[in-house]
Amino acid sequence: MAGTRIAIAVWDGVEELDFVGPFEVLTAWNGYSERDIEVAIVAERADVVRCAHGLRVLPDVTWDELEHPDVLVVPGGGMTPHHETGALVDNVRKLAANGTLMTSVCTGALAYANAGLLEGKPATTHWGALEGLAAFDGVEVRADERFVDAGEVITAQGVSAGIDMALYIVMRLDSAEVAAKVRRYIQYDPKPPV
Amino acid sequence: MAGTRIAIAVWDGVEELDFVGPFEVLTAWNGYSERDIEVAIVAERADVVRCAHGLRVLPDVTWDELEHPDVLVVPGGGMTPHHETGALVDNVRKLAANGTLMTSVCTGALAYANAGLLEGKPATTHWGALEGLAAFDGVEVRADERFVDAGEVITAQGVSAGIDMALYIVMRLDSAEVAAKVRRYIQYDPKPPV
Repeated sequence: MAGTRIAIAVWDGVEELDFVGPFEVLTAWNGYSERDIEVAIVAERADVVRCAHGLRVLPDVTWDELEHPDVLVVPGGGMTPHHETGALVDNVRKLAANGTLMTSVCTGALAYANAGLLEGKPATTHWGALEGLAAFDGVEVRADERFVDAGEVITAQGVSAGIDMALYIVMRLDSAEVAAKVRRYIQYDPKPPV
Repeated sequence: MAGTRIAIAVWDGVEELDFVGPFEVLTAWNGYSERDIEVAIVAERADVVRCAHGLRVLPDVTWDELEHPDVLVVPGGGMTPHHETGALVDNVRKLAANGTLMTSVCTGALAYANAGLLEGKPATTHWGALEGLAAFDGVEVRADERFVDAGEVITAQGVSAGIDMALYIVMRLDSAEVAAKVRRYIQYDPKPPV
C-alpha cells in the first residue's frame, strides 16, 4: 500500500481530546510505517474552529477540497452537525458509499447513526449518549466495549477512548508490532490516579 | 479559593497530546468545581503555532499579556525553547520565583532542569529523555513513576502521561471526588489494544 490518507473532522464545538488523541496516534504512526500516512484536519470552512472548551485550531482542508480519504475519524462534542440534516451527515454518507473506513469517538457515533450506517450493526458511544444511540432502530449498543469494530464502521466510547481506537486502527491496517511502537512513543502506560 | 488560573505553554514544535491531554482535563474540571478554573494557552507571539505533527493552534495570550498563573503546564516536543538560553526557561524562572505550581509533561521537565528548578528533587520525563535529565546535577530521576510530585514542581512521563498528571492536579488542588468526576466525563477507562 503506497499511502494511507486519513481525515479528521472538526467544527465549532468539537471536543478537544476526542480528535487530538487519534491525531497524535495516527500522525505518530507515520514515523514507524513503511507507507506514507497523511492526516488532514477537515472542516466546512478554512476559518479558525473554536472547540468545545475554547481551544482554537485551523483546519488543513475544507470538505470541498478533501481528497478521498481511506479513513475518516468523526469525534464528538457539540452535536449540531451530527443531526439528520447536518452538513457532516451528508459528507459521511458520501464517503461511506465510496469505501472509506468510518471511525468515530464519543458522540461521533450519532452522526453515523443519523447517516444510516449503523443499522443492524454493533456500536458504542460516550456513556452519556448510550440512550440516544439506542433510540436508533437496529443499532446493537455495546456500552461496555472500549471500541467496536463492525467492519466498515468502528465506534469508540467517550473522549479518551479515541486513543485506544486509533491504536487499534494502526493494528488493523498495519500490524500489532507497529501499533506497539506507536504506543511506546506516546508512552501510553496509563495510571489514572483516581 | 475564588479561582484558579492555569497557563499551558505552546510553541512551534510542541507535541500535540502533551498539551491537549492536560487542557481537556483542566478545562473539564471547571464543569465540576465550585471555583472558577481559567485555562489559557500561552505563546511568545499571538501568531498561529504549528505543533510537532502539524496541528495548527492559536494561543489565547502572549507571555507578555499573561496574568500571573496559579499553575503552569510545560509540555514537551521540539526542544529549542527548553534550552538553557531559551525564552521559555526565562519565563519559567520568573513564575517559579513567584509561587506558581510548576508542572510538566514529557520533555517539558528539561525546561525546568535548565531553569534550576529540579536541583535536589525527584522528577521524571519521557523515556527517551531520561539520560538527558540525569545529566543535570542533583536531579533524582524516577523512570518508572507516571508522574512525580516534588511539592512546587510536578513532572510527568511522556505524551499521554499528561492526562494522569492533570487528574492528579485536580485531586491535589480540589478533591479526589471532583477528579473522579472529570475522569468519568472523559471516560478514562483506558484499554490499550496492544
